Amino acid sequence: MNSKPSLHTSLSPALVHLYDISNSIIVIIDVLRATSTIATALHNGARCVIPVDSVSRCIELGRQIHGITAGERDGKVAEGLEYGNSPFEYPADFIEGKTLVLTTTNGTRLLHMALEKGAKEIVTGSFPNLSALCNHLIAMKKNVILGCAAWKDRVNMEDVLFAGAAISRVRTYFDINCDSSHMAEAMYEKGKKDLFTFLKNNNASHYHRLMNFGLEKDIRYCLTADNANVLPVYSDGKLVAKN
Amino acid sequence: MNSKPSLHTSLSPALVHLYDISNSIIVIIDVLRATSTIATALHNGARCVIPVDSVSRCIELGRQIHGITAGERDGKVAEGLEYGNSPFEYPADFIEGKTLVLTTTNGTRLLHMALEKGAKEIVTGSFPNLSALCNHLIAMKKNVILGCAAWKDRVNMEDVLFAGAAISRVRTYFDINCDSSHMAEAMYEKGKKDLFTFLKNNNASHYHRLMNFGLEKDIRYCLTADNANVLPVYSDGKLVAKN
Repeated sequence: MNSKPSLHTSLSPALVHLYDISNSIIVIIDVLRATSTIATALHNGARCVIPVDSVSRCIELGRQIHGITAGERDGKVAEGLEYGNSPFEYPADFIEGKTLVLTTTNGTRLLHMALEKGAKEIVTGSFPNLSALCNHLIAMKKNVILGCAAWKDRVNMEDVLFAGAAISRVRTYFDINCDSSHMAEAMYEKGKKDLFTFLKNNNASHYHRLMNFGLEKDIRYCLTADNANVLPVYSDGKLVAKN
Repeated sequence: MNSKPSLHTSLSPALVHLYDISNSIIVIIDVLRATSTIATALHNGARCVIPVDSVSRCIELGRQIHGITAGERDGKVAEGLEYGNSPFEYPADFIEGKTLVLTTTNGTRLLHMALEKGAKEIVTGSFPNLSALCNHLIAMKKNVILGCAAWKDRVNMEDVLFAGAAISRVRTYFDINCDSSHMAEAMYEKGKKDLFTFLKNNNASHYHRLMNFGLEKDIRYCLTADNANVLPVYSDGKLVAKN
């Protein structure tokens, strides 16, 4: 008798097969920093973002389509690529009208899993585009899977916090019978007053990793809502901002 | 320069392969109700508990060794078995000196995975034996994996809360670089004042499932610390209380 669509949260790509992907919109979540940077580049006018899973594929594709190649290894621009993973590298006066080829291991793998399983729609989520995402999910009235990209399949805190933030906004529109979702929301409620300090105080591994690279500004941006409020939708191999 | 052993939390059997099982003590956690009932039966004098993964295997083994067969399907004693999954079915005047053959799908599967990967030691954890477990982990000074049994690989809230409870007691003795562990502890800190109400308010799926079967008393017992304070250790196919 429940006519609301369902919402589930997959805390790791290694769990996403448990959910009914072919009947759902899947939201790829890679807060630090892939999906935050994707939203930012598209918000600033990039024509599209092509996510790829390796540096070599990034180089190859960048040459073929004359795109901007981007990706990091151990906090530095990867050898053979031009730019890094920071959203601050993609202001409008640089990225407008261009194609960004971005290497992102965890997020791209999850995206390809969603593709293979025939997801109804694939979009990306991050704090910079939180409202655009939530408004879309509410409007679509379809089943949703919030897919955390995690880190080499290990659950990470910032992706869970984002899932919780989204759930706190859309919960009344969905039937949520999923402990992972309820935990994500509880975590977000606990941390929402100051997500940066929450990651710090709870020893989030990526927080420490990026702080060690001097990237506090990136972390703070990636935890702030709606500064790049577009909806990236995946189609034909690329992410474009939905009109 | 860090000489403390490591501690990780695996939120689902589908994630446990990410951790270095062969170099660790693994704690099987199945709060509602398998590991709570195992601790209780052993605390009340059961000679041993043999966990099996199916009703047919339970019946077969029960016959062979003249053990007490136990297990439920959909909240009722499974056809062909004698008793259910409630810790209250195993008081001392019934279970003392006897062997309990218990079907538990999720926990047994995880236990067998730990066995196959050559875990250093396999023990079980639940609120009724929280202190015995934590004292053991502190004393052993070995790497630990807290393994949540989950529900058909889907993460569940009560197992995570127990992992968090254990972590809150042992954290200073371990090097914890694991977001799942930090999240579990944060969840426990949020809920610890009243775990029963926390599960209810956060719509934990097993809470609702067991409440629908009229098992509030079981849930409350399974969330209370140290009423069956033994350490079940797995060896040669059975769980026995460590002296």
